[in-house]
Amino acid sequence: MADPSAFAAFAAPGSTKELEEGRALTPKFDADGLVTCVATDAKSGDVLMVAHMNAEALQKTIASGEAWYFSRSRRALWRKGESSGHVQRIVEMRIDCDQDAVWIKVEQEGPGACHTGRRSCFYRAVPLGRTGAVTLEFRDGDKTFDPKKVYGG
Amino acid sequence: MADPSAFAAFAAPGSTKELEEGRALTPKFDADGLVTCVATDAKSGDVLMVAHMNAEALQKTIASGEAWYFSRSRRALWRKGESSGHVQRIVEMRIDCDQDAVWIKVEQEGPGACHTGRRSCFYRAVPLGRTGAVTLEFRDGDKTFDPKKVYGG
Repeated sequence: MADPSAFAAFAAPGSTKELEEGRALTPKFDADGLVTCVATDAKSGDVLMVAHMNAEALQKTIASGEAWYFSRSRRALWRKGESSGHVQRIVEMRIDCDQDAVWIKVEQEGPGACHTGRRSCFYRAVPLGRTGAVTLEFRDGDKTFDPKKVYGG
Repeated sequence: MADPSAFAAFAAPGSTKELEEGRALTPKFDADGLVTCVATDAKSGDVLMVAHMNAEALQKTIASGEAWYFSRSRRALWRKGESSGHVQRIVEMRIDCDQDAVWIKVEQEGPGACHTGRRSCFYRAVPLGRTGAVTLEFRDGDKTFDPKKVYGG
């Protein structure tokens, strides 16, 4: 799937000042070679999902303007929408102060981003002001598509 | 700083179905004992910061309705705003499908969330459609406070 010729490594992070105030993209990958990525809906501002990118996923995302991720469970590069068709077209991409997290504002193709069949992965609220066991509250929890039909059963 | 008596462990994650469709909060902490937390501005929807919570930070956040984090670099529990006064009051908290990431919509006290002196940590855009070296573009990059004055030089 991956085309090694399209893969260019990023320069290593420099000093804290260079990381925070510089104009060079020098991502600070963690011990597993990953940065965190937050995808928000460009229209509603809702957080759709949180996932990870390795250097290759990040490079492909920047080059294509569509979200590529790295699956920690499958240990595999993954183009969002490659099996579901639910592609994420990036309207704007930002990187944070210490360059270990990216934020993409996306136009989400299709009915949702979540593999459970919902628009967003964040369909349960955590009630506040509690100690002890917490009971989640479903919010925007209705399924917008049938994951078995989209991803296969 | 931390009060051990206020700390209650969460139940261990169950099956995938329980994690994704259940009402029990059973966070899936990573090998370092952390979940990812995305804080967005409750009014603008902008992502302010991405940080991490261990079980104790998560418990204190839920109990207090204010953001507590765990600093990976300092290996320490950290109440957001404890040195700067820039507290984050949580309007709504959500957890994602596999319960390894939380999203908090916050009212950010003070002029900003970022230790560099800006409202958000995401003050640089990554231009798309490029291969090779990437030059970041400052966006909303003006400092809203002097970090030396707030955090000490």
